[in-house]
Amino acid sequence: MTNENIQVCLAARPVGMPVDSDWDIRRSPVPQAEAGQFVAEVLYVSLDPAMRGWMNDARSYIEPVGIGDVMRAGGIARVCESKHPEFKVGDHVFCMTGIQQFCVSNGENVQKVNPDVATLTTYLGVLGMTGMTAYFGLLDVAGIHAGETVVVSGAAGAVGSVVGQIARIKGCRVVGIAGGEQKCSYLVDELGFDAAIDYKREDLRKALREHCPKGIDVYFDNVGGETLNTILPMLRMHGRIAICGAISQYNNTGPVEGPSNYMALLVSRARMEGFVVFDYTKRFPEAVQDMAGWLANGSLKSKEQIEDGIENFPSIFLKLFEGGNFGKLIIRNTAA
Amino acid sequence: MTNENIQVCLAARPVGMPVDSDWDIRRSPVPQAEAGQFVAEVLYVSLDPAMRGWMNDARSYIEPVGIGDVMRAGGIARVCESKHPEFKVGDHVFCMTGIQQFCVSNGENVQKVNPDVATLTTYLGVLGMTGMTAYFGLLDVAGIHAGETVVVSGAAGAVGSVVGQIARIKGCRVVGIAGGEQKCSYLVDELGFDAAIDYKREDLRKALREHCPKGIDVYFDNVGGETLNTILPMLRMHGRIAICGAISQYNNTGPVEGPSNYMALLVSRARMEGFVVFDYTKRFPEAVQDMAGWLANGSLKSKEQIEDGIENFPSIFLKLFEGGNFGKLIIRNTAA
Repeated sequence: MTNENIQVCLAARPVGMPVDSDWDIRRSPVPQAEAGQFVAEVLYVSLDPAMRGWMNDARSYIEPVGIGDVMRAGGIARVCESKHPEFKVGDHVFCMTGIQQFCVSNGENVQKVNPDVATLTTYLGVLGMTGMTAYFGLLDVAGIHAGETVVVSGAAGAVGSVVGQIARIKGCRVVGIAGGEQKCSYLVDELGFDAAIDYKREDLRKALREHCPKGIDVYFDNVGGETLNTILPMLRMHGRIAICGAISQYNNTGPVEGPSNYMALLVSRARMEGFVVFDYTKRFPEAVQDMAGWLANGSLKSKEQIEDGIENFPSIFLKLFEGGNFGKLIIRNTAA
Repeated sequence: MTNENIQVCLAARPVGMPVDSDWDIRRSPVPQAEAGQFVAEVLYVSLDPAMRGWMNDARSYIEPVGIGDVMRAGGIARVCESKHPEFKVGDHVFCMTGIQQFCVSNGENVQKVNPDVATLTTYLGVLGMTGMTAYFGLLDVAGIHAGETVVVSGAAGAVGSVVGQIARIKGCRVVGIAGGEQKCSYLVDELGFDAAIDYKREDLRKALREHCPKGIDVYFDNVGGETLNTILPMLRMHGRIAICGAISQYNNTGPVEGPSNYMALLVSRARMEGFVVFDYTKRFPEAVQDMAGWLANGSLKSKEQIEDGIENFPSIFLKLFEGGNFGKLIIRNTAA
């Protein structure tokens, strides 16, 4: 165990894609617990597209990260000092650790995780926020039914790959949109998607017409932009779009591209609905039970891309926006 | 009764705002009924913004009007010849009469109306498609609750004025958006809206902030464009937008303006949903019963603007897009 705490702090609000000067890599002493607190060594942190939004000073579903503050992130940590009655040294926890090597907590919004039930990184992926986002967005917000056609963008990403697998488990026809042949083959060959469209190589409209001959009942949107716009007029009657993200727009310096085909919602009596996974916290246990069952019987597969070094966050984070991740993107604290 | 039938036929698909050359005013002989048909003299026709969409050759919720065909429209007619067992001479009916002086029908999708219960034009307005659109869009699609803040655009129009009044009846705070002082005063002084915003004179965002201090629970959208975009970030948690129309965009020659603030749906866990009144046909009786009751007890007022002459349709129709109507726009067949 080191005696310093490397912290990645927000130095400036990024304009467009974050650059190195937006970050301040700080080396602080390892914190000490006060009464009612514990200190934990961070083992893994989760990297998610939504974090880009947290860097902006704009009204959103969560407060922006303050300038000078440690970048917010979910992570898995192991308690190394405790003055908290409910957490003892050696406990593994999931909490908002931040992008740093050690965190201090008073126990609020901290969940213990059991490394004997699933690998620790699974609690950031399929059994973590990522999996919960896919589960509730698809089953609760979109509300799928067996036999429906479900399209998901960012399909080889952490959320998208789980969305497609759950839709398959529930008896839907699933078409994924991803970038590159390798990702597309994986979706079809390994995860059982009915089809995958390589948006970098194929004409999206034409490919969707081919793979969704009856139209699209549900679109789980991770990317926004022209993909969303192309899909809107292909919705079937009473179609649903679950708005999970808009990764194509997060680093825009100009205004977001609004879906000019939104009046297709009227033509198809369809709806477009936004959601935030944090609203479902109370129902996580039911989802975890389902997901763990599907993991155990092999109907749900988890793919993770684990990169090394908390201090490398500024460059690793960019992979999310450059198609550079394949599965759940995680950083391992190599000092731990 | 004349012996000719003036018909307004679509001569060309309008590009942008319809012009005279898009229309062919045809003088045909009065039709005769064959077995199982009746002929009716058209007394009133309904003019609605949605009719602009029917002139386009595009996928929509209804087939486009064919070139050379009589322009489609709902109307009230009086049977003048009948070889149909269920309709007798003198019966008043609502049906898709088209913009013409006489129509022939086999009785399908024809509803008899009773001039002793309400004035004939009421069956085109509050008790007709207009009223049904307001009723089901607000109560079924948006799903309002007492105490919520409801904003409606095109508020002095046929649908908007009814939307606002129903929302008031149901105990909501109602803010209307309309063009011009006269319309705004009418909404507040005559119809009991809590506030009205004159979009031609006021800063919409500022005025909405003032009149909707808690934010907006429901937005009933008749206009689309910048108004929709301004409202999106003002939605309260679990807000609903009912997409009824987008009159600001119907005569666009370029692409429709998509709502660039649509990601506010995620921030507010809100939804945006389209609907078409024809889907609710089976439930019209329940709505008519409510609406007739509200008309009778004075809590719902009907405002109609009745213009003269079927042959004047091409110019009268444009009033809908120029802020030239105040209430339900209807043409009276002056030859009847």
